[in-house]
Amino acid sequence: MNEQQIIEQIRRQAGSESLELGIGDDCAIYRPKANEDLLFTTDFLIEDVHFRRGLFPPDAIGHKALARSLSDIAAMGGDPRFCLLSLALPNGIGSDWLEQFFRGFFKLARKYKTTLAGGDLSRASKVTCDVMVCGSTPRGKALRRDGAKPGDIIYVSGRLGKGWERYQRPEPRLAIGKSLRGRATAAMDLSDGISMDLHRMCKASGVAALLESVPLMPGASLDAALHGGEDYELLFTLPPRKKAPKGSFRVGIIERGDSGLIRFHEQALSALGHDHFRESTTPQH
Amino acid sequence: MNEQQIIEQIRRQAGSESLELGIGDDCAIYRPKANEDLLFTTDFLIEDVHFRRGLFPPDAIGHKALARSLSDIAAMGGDPRFCLLSLALPNGIGSDWLEQFFRGFFKLARKYKTTLAGGDLSRASKVTCDVMVCGSTPRGKALRRDGAKPGDIIYVSGRLGKGWERYQRPEPRLAIGKSLRGRATAAMDLSDGISMDLHRMCKASGVAALLESVPLMPGASLDAALHGGEDYELLFTLPPRKKAPKGSFRVGIIERGDSGLIRFHEQALSALGHDHFRESTTPQH
Repeated sequence: MNEQQIIEQIRRQAGSESLELGIGDDCAIYRPKANEDLLFTTDFLIEDVHFRRGLFPPDAIGHKALARSLSDIAAMGGDPRFCLLSLALPNGIGSDWLEQFFRGFFKLARKYKTTLAGGDLSRASKVTCDVMVCGSTPRGKALRRDGAKPGDIIYVSGRLGKGWERYQRPEPRLAIGKSLRGRATAAMDLSDGISMDLHRMCKASGVAALLESVPLMPGASLDAALHGGEDYELLFTLPPRKKAPKGSFRVGIIERGDSGLIRFHEQALSALGHDHFRESTTPQH
Repeated sequence: MNEQQIIEQIRRQAGSESLELGIGDDCAIYRPKANEDLLFTTDFLIEDVHFRRGLFPPDAIGHKALARSLSDIAAMGGDPRFCLLSLALPNGIGSDWLEQFFRGFFKLARKYKTTLAGGDLSRASKVTCDVMVCGSTPRGKALRRDGAKPGDIIYVSGRLGKGWERYQRPEPRLAIGKSLRGRATAAMDLSDGISMDLHRMCKASGVAALLESVPLMPGASLDAALHGGEDYELLFTLPPRKKAPKGSFRVGIIERGDSGLIRFHEQALSALGHDHFRESTTPQH
């Protein structure tokens, strides 16, 4: 296959709903609707950094490449509109692998009405995906991470410390994110572990927090739930009188105090979540 | 440096003009203006595929990573609004390298008022950049590649077959692109060689073309100008009575005929421009 043939194959599956112009020109064209704010996020998924090719089926790589960015849209309370896929492939990747990759990618894209608007295709020594997603909220309704106030209750959208299946195929919490519009004072997604991510939320909001307890997946260790990352659940705060969405768990309360300080079991909790530039580059999986 | 410190350093230079919310949350927020169409493009720049680290100063890598996507915005007649930078770095890249990379990146970003709105940072075995740029045109005014008509005159915005300096630091033709709004019947940027790119434009427009001559840079070979790629000049068509922008060269005329067929020196011209999935992955430079 040459580059043009691969692009043709992708274009046939991509559709162009919500776009003025889809794949095939120098740029895609999106015509904004009246009164919308647009959300933009992008995430890498790189072989031997985020996954090992021998352990991840190609469709899981396609799924997860898109799911990581959709999770950011969920965290802001957005509806996904379209995405761009940058994909670099080593020699030896065949059309079977590509077909499965795109099966996983487009299955998730269709589920959440995310049109593939364009991207880039290249060679590289490792499979390298970078997925940009554009989402939408009504004007001024996007959820941010900097609005948590002392007295707000802290929630997570589900149990933490996921197993292998959820690690490979995380589900972006788009419905819950959207239901929090106009209600949550702060929200973000749990990609780097709650110890790190709650610290970041508190730092952005200029507050401290008491972490009371963490809901664990069956078989998960407390350590994995606190510092493990890759949960892709939402972390959010609600004023005390507001009801939390079904299935979510109260995990603590926002306090006055040193910006970013998290107390847990009567001690300060260290932010040990994921940091690419502190740890080794070897992925656990 | 850890990830948070690198992001802080970037954020200080990024600014947030034109954005509701810049770097630091799950997504950036852009509030569309009345009556605008938004353009989206993304381009990889990968070590040992698009450049060799030993031959490219870090500031040229930063410049070129952004310039490639800005060139696509120019080709659609857009004004750049903001960008996202995904950057993956091998071990051993120090803060000096990063500082120079961002000097090149932000110098070009400021010149064309392109705010850095966010991105992703990761490890990888090779320096890997993927830059998404969002541009803007008045509604319905974007230049496409599919509107060329028999009788239209074909132009390029400058001489072809660039030297080393222009290969390292291409200049996106944003002013010329904008001046073609409402005038050009088709436009695209020359990134893969005029033999390939004119073929693509004719194919998209369902027309053929006669290539009369190609304006060469001093010292450039005809072969480099036809098939070399990486020129980042604009290729565009105007109806016969329309005046071309200063500095551009007439190179041919659109004809009825087999879609995508290019005649040159009384022969059919093969589209030998760049294709990542046909050639070897070794870059020339």
